[in-house]
Amino acid sequence: MRKTTLCIFCSIIQGDAPGVLVYTDNEFVALMDKYPVNYGHTLLVPKLHYNDLLSMPIDLIGRMYCMAANLAKAIVLSVKADGFNLGQNNGRAANQIVPHVHVHIIPRYNYDSPNGNWPSRKVASLVELARIAESISKSIAEPLSSGYLQ
Amino acid sequence: MRKTTLCIFCSIIQGDAPGVLVYTDNEFVALMDKYPVNYGHTLLVPKLHYNDLLSMPIDLIGRMYCMAANLAKAIVLSVKADGFNLGQNNGRAANQIVPHVHVHIIPRYNYDSPNGNWPSRKVASLVELARIAESISKSIAEPLSSGYLQ
Repeated sequence: MRKTTLCIFCSIIQGDAPGVLVYTDNEFVALMDKYPVNYGHTLLVPKLHYNDLLSMPIDLIGRMYCMAANLAKAIVLSVKADGFNLGQNNGRAANQIVPHVHVHIIPRYNYDSPNGNWPSRKVASLVELARIAESISKSIAEPLSSGYLQ
Repeated sequence: MRKTTLCIFCSIIQGDAPGVLVYTDNEFVALMDKYPVNYGHTLLVPKLHYNDLLSMPIDLIGRMYCMAANLAKAIVLSVKADGFNLGQNNGRAANQIVPHVHVHIIPRYNYDSPNGNWPSRKVASLVELARIAESISKSIAEPLSSGYLQ
C-alpha cells in the first residue's frame, strides 16, 4: 500500500532527505542506520512503501531476505564481526519506529552485550558511516559461502 | 553443512526429542518456543542442519522467510497480537543458542515492554503450547493480506 505523504525512508529513496546508501537495485535500497547498535548496522528497505511485512507481496519478501543474507555476509566481512542479527519489527507494539518495512542487519562481537540485551546505540558521523558503507558495498559482489562466523 | 552429531532441533525433527510442532513440510518445521517471549512465540527451522544463515543456499533462505511471513500472519490472528518481531541470530556473539538456523516469530502487544527490551520469557506447559499450536496451525491456510496490525 502506498502512502500519500512521504515517510523518511520514502524521502531518502526519492533523494529528498539525506541518507548514507550502501546498496540499491530496482526493488531495494540499503542504508546505514544513523544510530547503529554496532558500526555496520544496515537497514534493508523495499523501494515501494509497505507499512509492515504482512502488507508485502510474498515473493518480494523472499527476495528481500535473499538480499539481506547477501548484505549480512558483506557486513560481516567488512567490519570483521563475530556474528550478526537479522531483525524485522512490525507494528508499534514491536518497536517499529518508521512505518515502512525494513530489515535490521546488525553485526555483533563476542562480549559486546554482557546482559543479553542490545548493546547501546552509537552515534556515528556521516563521514564514518560513508567509509563503512563503501567497504560493505565493495564486499557485496563476493559469493556466499560457509565458515564466516566464529 | 550437516553435523555428524544431532543438535536439539535435528533430534526434534527426527522424532527423537519432544517438541510441540505447529507446521511441517518437505523443507521446514515450525515449533513452539519452550520459553516464549509471549505465547505464540514460534521457531521456524530448516529440516537440514545449517549452522547459520551464511551456510544456507540462498533460494532456501528466500523460501524460509516466505514461510515465516505466512506463519507470522497465522500467529497474529491466533493470539490476537498487536504486532510481531522476526528475529534471526547467527553466532554465539549474536545470542544464537542452538547452532541450527531458526527464525524467531514473536507476537507482541502494546505496552508489553515498557523499557524497550524484550519482555521476560514465560514458562508454558506443554498442554498450553499444544493448544496455541493447534490454533496457529488452523490459521496458516488463510491468505496473506494487509491490515492485520494495529
